[in-house]
Amino acid sequence: MKYFRIPDVTIMRLSMYSRYLDRLQKAGVTVTSSQDIADNTGSTSAQVRKDLAYFGGFGVRGVGYTVKSLYEILSGILGVDRDWNLIVIGAGRLGMALSLYQGFNRRGFTNVGIFDVDPRKVGRKIQGRPILHTDRLEAVCEEHSPDIALITVPAEAAQGVADRLVGCGVRSILNFAPTVLQVPPPVRVRNVDFTVNLEFLTYSMVSDFLE
Amino acid sequence: MKYFRIPDVTIMRLSMYSRYLDRLQKAGVTVTSSQDIADNTGSTSAQVRKDLAYFGGFGVRGVGYTVKSLYEILSGILGVDRDWNLIVIGAGRLGMALSLYQGFNRRGFTNVGIFDVDPRKVGRKIQGRPILHTDRLEAVCEEHSPDIALITVPAEAAQGVADRLVGCGVRSILNFAPTVLQVPPPVRVRNVDFTVNLEFLTYSMVSDFLE
Repeated sequence: MKYFRIPDVTIMRLSMYSRYLDRLQKAGVTVTSSQDIADNTGSTSAQVRKDLAYFGGFGVRGVGYTVKSLYEILSGILGVDRDWNLIVIGAGRLGMALSLYQGFNRRGFTNVGIFDVDPRKVGRKIQGRPILHTDRLEAVCEEHSPDIALITVPAEAAQGVADRLVGCGVRSILNFAPTVLQVPPPVRVRNVDFTVNLEFLTYSMVSDFLE
Repeated sequence: MKYFRIPDVTIMRLSMYSRYLDRLQKAGVTVTSSQDIADNTGSTSAQVRKDLAYFGGFGVRGVGYTVKSLYEILSGILGVDRDWNLIVIGAGRLGMALSLYQGFNRRGFTNVGIFDVDPRKVGRKIQGRPILHTDRLEAVCEEHSPDIALITVPAEAAQGVADRLVGCGVRSILNFAPTVLQVPPPVRVRNVDFTVNLEFLTYSMVSDFLE
C-alpha cells in the first residue's frame, strides 16, 4: 500500500496527532477537526489534511474526524496497534531514565531487559527486574525477540553493541550515543543526539544577528 | 551573511562534522578530506562539500581541509566558539541525566541551574550545586542570563514553564516534554520527543511488510 515515499516529518507528525487523539479519546471527545488537531500539535490544518491524505481521506467535510476511527487508522500506520518489546543497552543515568519512562508503556512498548557491563550496576533492580550483564544479550534476545534496542553506552562502545544487536535479530535501533552507527539493511538506526539539537539552537541564535 | 535559508539537516550535519574535526584535532591530525569526514559522520563526500559550500569554499582541491581552520569556521557558524549558559527545568531522571551529561561541557555549555518543584528534590546536591526550587528561576536568570533552557517537566507543566522562561529572557528551549509549546518570536523551541522517534522506527518496520 506504500506507493511512494512518505516524508519523515509526516511520520513524526502522525505520531503527535495520534498521541493527541489518544488524549481526546480518554477525555471522552468523539469528534475533532484538522484545525483542532493542528492547534494541539504545533501544525496547521492544511498540513494535517495533507499528512493524512498520504494514506487516504479520513475526514468528512463539515463534520470532521471521528476520534476513535482516526486514532485506530493512525495506530495501524505507525504500528502502535501491536505490542513491541524493547531493550536498553547502557544502564547509566540516561539508560535508567529511558527504562523507566512511562511514555513508552503508554504507547505499547515493553522493556524486556536493561544491560550494562559495569559490575557495580549489574544485578541492581529496576522496578523489580535486575540490570543484566551485556554477556546475557544473546540469551535475552532469544527468549524475548525484541525488535527495538535503545543504545545509551559511551560513543566508543556503541558500534560493537550495534553489531551484536544486529546478530541478535534486532531490527531497529534508537541510538543516543554521539556517534554514527553502521548497520546492514534492513536494520534501521535513528539517532537522538542531544548536542546536535543544542547546536541547532545556538546556530539559530548566532545567525539571528546576521540577518 | 545569511543570504538564504540553510536547511535544518545541513546545520545538524555541520554539528556532527564539527565534533569529528574536534576529535581529529585532539588526535593530532592536521589535514582531512570530505570523504574522511563523510565516512565518520554517516554522510557522503558530495554532501559534505555541498553543506560546506553554503558558507563558502573551505577546501583545497587535491589537498583537502585543514582540520584546525575548518573546525574554527564551523565553530563560528554553529556559535560554539563562545560559552553558553543553560538551565534545566525538571530534576527527574532525565533532567539529572542531562544536567550531568559530559558531552555538553565538552562543547562549551555550562549548566548554571537545575530546578524542580518537588520538596524532596530541592536542596539535594548535584556535583556540589543544589537543586533549586522553581520559585528561584527569575532570580537565577537575572544573575546568570542563561540563553538556553532544557525542559524535562511533565507535559502538563511544560507550557507554564516555557512562559516563565520567555519572561526571563531565555532565547532557546530544548523541550523534552511530549507536548507542543507556544512561544513568541524570536524565542525558538526544538523538540526532542522520544516516543515520536520510536514510532518512526515502528512505522518503518510495519511498512517494510507492505513494500
